[in-house]
Amino acid sequence: MYIVPEKAIADLVTREASFDAVEKVFAAMAAGDAYNFPVVREAIGHEDALYGFKGGFDRAGLTLGLKAGGYWPNNLEKRGLINHQSTVFLFDPDNGKVKAMVGGNLLTALRTAAASSVSIKHLARQDAKVIGMIGAGHQAKFQLRAALEQREFEKVIGWNLHPEMLPNLQEVADEAGLPFEAVELDGMREADVIISITSSFDAILKADQVSPGTHIACMGTDTKGKQEVDPQLLVKADVFTDEVAQSISIGEAQHAVTQGLIQEADVAQIGAVINGTNPGRTSDDQITLFDGTGVGLQDLAVAASVVDVAVEKGVAIEVDF
Amino acid sequence: MYIVPEKAIADLVTREASFDAVEKVFAAMAAGDAYNFPVVREAIGHEDALYGFKGGFDRAGLTLGLKAGGYWPNNLEKRGLINHQSTVFLFDPDNGKVKAMVGGNLLTALRTAAASSVSIKHLARQDAKVIGMIGAGHQAKFQLRAALEQREFEKVIGWNLHPEMLPNLQEVADEAGLPFEAVELDGMREADVIISITSSFDAILKADQVSPGTHIACMGTDTKGKQEVDPQLLVKADVFTDEVAQSISIGEAQHAVTQGLIQEADVAQIGAVINGTNPGRTSDDQITLFDGTGVGLQDLAVAASVVDVAVEKGVAIEVDF
Repeated sequence: MYIVPEKAIADLVTREASFDAVEKVFAAMAAGDAYNFPVVREAIGHEDALYGFKGGFDRAGLTLGLKAGGYWPNNLEKRGLINHQSTVFLFDPDNGKVKAMVGGNLLTALRTAAASSVSIKHLARQDAKVIGMIGAGHQAKFQLRAALEQREFEKVIGWNLHPEMLPNLQEVADEAGLPFEAVELDGMREADVIISITSSFDAILKADQVSPGTHIACMGTDTKGKQEVDPQLLVKADVFTDEVAQSISIGEAQHAVTQGLIQEADVAQIGAVINGTNPGRTSDDQITLFDGTGVGLQDLAVAASVVDVAVEKGVAIEVDF
Repeated sequence: MYIVPEKAIADLVTREASFDAVEKVFAAMAAGDAYNFPVVREAIGHEDALYGFKGGFDRAGLTLGLKAGGYWPNNLEKRGLINHQSTVFLFDPDNGKVKAMVGGNLLTALRTAAASSVSIKHLARQDAKVIGMIGAGHQAKFQLRAALEQREFEKVIGWNLHPEMLPNLQEVADEAGLPFEAVELDGMREADVIISITSSFDAILKADQVSPGTHIACMGTDTKGKQEVDPQLLVKADVFTDEVAQSISIGEAQHAVTQGLIQEADVAQIGAVINGTNPGRTSDDQITLFDGTGVGLQDLAVAASVVDVAVEKGVAIEVDF
């Protein structure tokens, strides 16, 4: 079996490879070739940690396994370690033996960024010029970098609850040679593409703060109770997601569904758009919304591609297990 | 992090260490210090395999992690590999980082044997002389070897659906210098302790084939539909288990509960007996029944003890992960 430690990942993985892996596995999910297992997520009663497993099997890519780990809120302050800690384990679907162990921290950031990027490729207007960011934390930088590759953007605008974080967005805009402007939420009406990536438990963005023709990717809501946008926005928008069952239970759509504003049938799989069985965007006035909840198969797909590169480059540690 | 490959396990683990680890974690479960996570078990639609995760956290022993793997029914015939394949992953509960990866195949056999052995220590009559085995496959040898250490047994009797397997039991009896006798099921009335370890989907042993004062450990039933003994035996017996929720849903008690013969409250945790909060056996006439369903915490406990020994002996592979 092969081991690819966390510290080796940065040199092995590219945004392009992450994008391809995530796009492919979303397509496989919609085609019925890949599915995610029930998620285990436990508050273990130690260090206030959340720990669990997200597993799945992609019959098309023959990728089987899980991501294990979680959230240790005291890590940074107490230990100088990042709070999100995860490891991906891949198994051989032909015989059940463990095949690879891969550091999952950077991969998680990249696969999450790839998901909104895939949604922009398939749902945003081709002529999108202004990208708006709601949230300016560490992960927002990953989302923005990946997004900028999908359209000829000319300007970045951003809002954050704590404005002192906005230089994070400025930094990525600078890298890309684009102007950055801090805006109030009303200013988001200028955006053709919006990404929300916060840990909010209340709607931040109102439905009337999103202009016709916008694509919005809601990437922060992955737990019951979290919320980034007004449920009325999901009524106005055509709603897409990575996995419908998660979208309506722990994703952004949970609120609109609970309030009876939309139904499960109103939420479509992004993979169906990729596969061409759902038309996706059909007009320039339509608002499209991608509810990115995060599925285990994304982690497995990106990890599998990293293992291939690591073996090729001779940096995977081989262990006779 | 440390890696202990499957092939190293046999030299590192003893029946005594497995017994101690399992006894301790059963006690921690009953004391509320350790708990198992929901089990994920999926028919993945490839190679007829069942794959999944059994995780848990022991706050007392600070053991966190999971066993991943499953059952690949074509392994032996197609690939010369054993059909049950599993790997244990331990995490550091203080920071969420992976701590160890341990081959889980032999460990699974030993922890299953340790469970019935723990039940015999705490529930069988002190003067038990005859041990009866129902089932004579590969795992039956592990169960019998571990059981023989708990009382001064003088004789082994055994039954198997396919009598040509009985030499497996004869072999273990020979090792221990004890006589072995193949019997019909009626002959089990002679036994003071019975272990059933089959993959049966129908009751094998009738309630009137078990004598007063017997302790029986039902170790084969770990899935909905499986069954080893007459549900009436669970009415006659005092019923104990590793984990009550599993016992009544996927364990031997599922049938008696479904038929309304016993209730959840009639099933006690073996850990409570170990801790002294449940009296366990209170008379020589009582039949005690242990429903061993198998929990992730057993795997983690045994794996953690193996890692300690492997590090001590310098055979653990250390990887800078």
